[in-house]
Amino acid sequence: MRIGIDVMGGDYAPKTAVLGVVEASQVVSTDTILVMFGCKDEIESILPNGTLPSNVEIVNTTEVIGMCDSPAQAYTKKKDSSIVVGFNHLHSGSIDAFASAGSTGAMLVGCMYTIKQIEGVIRPTIAAPIPTVVDGKDTLLLDVGLNVDCKPEVLYQYAILGSIYSNVMMGNINPRVALLNIGEEEEKGDMLTKATYVLMKDSDKFNFVGNLEANHVLEGSKADVLVCDGFIGNAVLKMAEGFYAALKDSVSDDKLNFYERLNYEAHGGTPVLGVNSVVIIGHGRSSARAISKMLLQAEKAVKGDLIQKIKEAFC
Amino acid sequence: MRIGIDVMGGDYAPKTAVLGVVEASQVVSTDTILVMFGCKDEIESILPNGTLPSNVEIVNTTEVIGMCDSPAQAYTKKKDSSIVVGFNHLHSGSIDAFASAGSTGAMLVGCMYTIKQIEGVIRPTIAAPIPTVVDGKDTLLLDVGLNVDCKPEVLYQYAILGSIYSNVMMGNINPRVALLNIGEEEEKGDMLTKATYVLMKDSDKFNFVGNLEANHVLEGSKADVLVCDGFIGNAVLKMAEGFYAALKDSVSDDKLNFYERLNYEAHGGTPVLGVNSVVIIGHGRSSARAISKMLLQAEKAVKGDLIQKIKEAFC
Repeated sequence: MRIGIDVMGGDYAPKTAVLGVVEASQVVSTDTILVMFGCKDEIESILPNGTLPSNVEIVNTTEVIGMCDSPAQAYTKKKDSSIVVGFNHLHSGSIDAFASAGSTGAMLVGCMYTIKQIEGVIRPTIAAPIPTVVDGKDTLLLDVGLNVDCKPEVLYQYAILGSIYSNVMMGNINPRVALLNIGEEEEKGDMLTKATYVLMKDSDKFNFVGNLEANHVLEGSKADVLVCDGFIGNAVLKMAEGFYAALKDSVSDDKLNFYERLNYEAHGGTPVLGVNSVVIIGHGRSSARAISKMLLQAEKAVKGDLIQKIKEAFC
Repeated sequence: MRIGIDVMGGDYAPKTAVLGVVEASQVVSTDTILVMFGCKDEIESILPNGTLPSNVEIVNTTEVIGMCDSPAQAYTKKKDSSIVVGFNHLHSGSIDAFASAGSTGAMLVGCMYTIKQIEGVIRPTIAAPIPTVVDGKDTLLLDVGLNVDCKPEVLYQYAILGSIYSNVMMGNINPRVALLNIGEEEEKGDMLTKATYVLMKDSDKFNFVGNLEANHVLEGSKADVLVCDGFIGNAVLKMAEGFYAALKDSVSDDKLNFYERLNYEAHGGTPVLGVNSVVIIGHGRSSARAISKMLLQAEKAVKGDLIQKIKEAFC
């Protein structure tokens, strides 16, 4: 398979992205090729010993969509930017997945205009793992900020998307799906969660386990997938980021593993679910390690046939 | 002044409540009388040395509204319960404030049916302090779960209520009021926050400082008051509770002060703002120390003329 990455995006681009690709090139499967989209001269100047690993290719691009660009305008105008060229390769099938730590907006424009959403999916979504105190276990939270003012049907679909992702990518058999709510009982919540509960409770498309309150999220013992409107998910995710920052260097060894997993800079990326290809968006401050993880995440999604499984659930 | 407290409510009632009253009785102002509503015999059996402090009174009540009772039904039927009798005393003016660590639902029923909301207030609200890493500084978050599906006008009023509370109770001059949102810019957010921003930005009723994202809440440097829908506020507050639990006994001394303030069991209570009297609802797991703090909080609100100041803002 061929995994594409925009190496011009992110706060420390192209350096950390190129070094992340080199790191990943040493651990991906033997039949995986990594394809860097970016300025060839810059990339070559960063490569350790000036050597391109044998399983890495470069597609030279001459433009960059920056953080200050309007995503939609830039996507239309900067036709030779690393992101646009990457999406074109993804669309034509010359790569199987595409990742970037660059402009989230431009990545989403690429998803919607070039790759397009899977038929039957009302709204594609972005998901993020929330670490829990259960060793090594994350709960998948979605949506984390792509769609606000969601309708119940949209949240219902998140449950399907999250359930498949949790199974393919996180190894959970029959993942437990919960609805993030402000009370445990069915009748609790706002208009959205009450109506969503009714849709979810009798579904045979996923394993619904009921409402989950935010104080239980980090316990990790009750749900593998947690569904909510993007406004809520974004606030919950950012609270976790805030806690990481607030307690920096002050957590003792027994909880350090949990605590460090709150650091989103160290993570892989955020998958876009519900579109026709594997697309992963990294944190702007992604380290080389995070870039490498993002590429392995993309590889795993392709290997696990994630997109096909989602398509089948919606056909 | 006379501060009333339901000593029959809370998970460890009446013991911790009575001991909390005794603790508070030693530190309140000389002209403050604490009035316990509850079973006289039980209270007397708990009093250290069987002695009632000279600035404490007992109003004997024979019924208790439990956590399993339907709040509205119980409030109507259990006419000699500590909560109902307490609210009647508050309404008649024989006490100046009322606090309880018992049924939140029954306390809110009492607020709405006996005390009633202040004219002009669309929805009374409950507020909670969120600790920040700035030494000793909390940000007031409201609403934290009383009202969901809020309209922009309701959030606008929270800004007024929170601003007055922050000034009177937390000593902030011209408190900075922010809107909890998923982006900093004016145009970011869901329908509710976008419309609320427009209402808030030109207001001369409070000092609006713009949107605040959840990852900055704990920094404490940007806002004294943080306004949001009750669903969001409840989730944010419960995330904080969850973090406290997740890192129990694992935070080093340098951040212990911040971390311990996340423990809502150690706090005073949650004020109900927008009703015609000082009403404070404590955590069900309130310790004697928390009960004592709640009584001092009530005393401060009465001394600071909190209710009159709110009434003036809405007349």
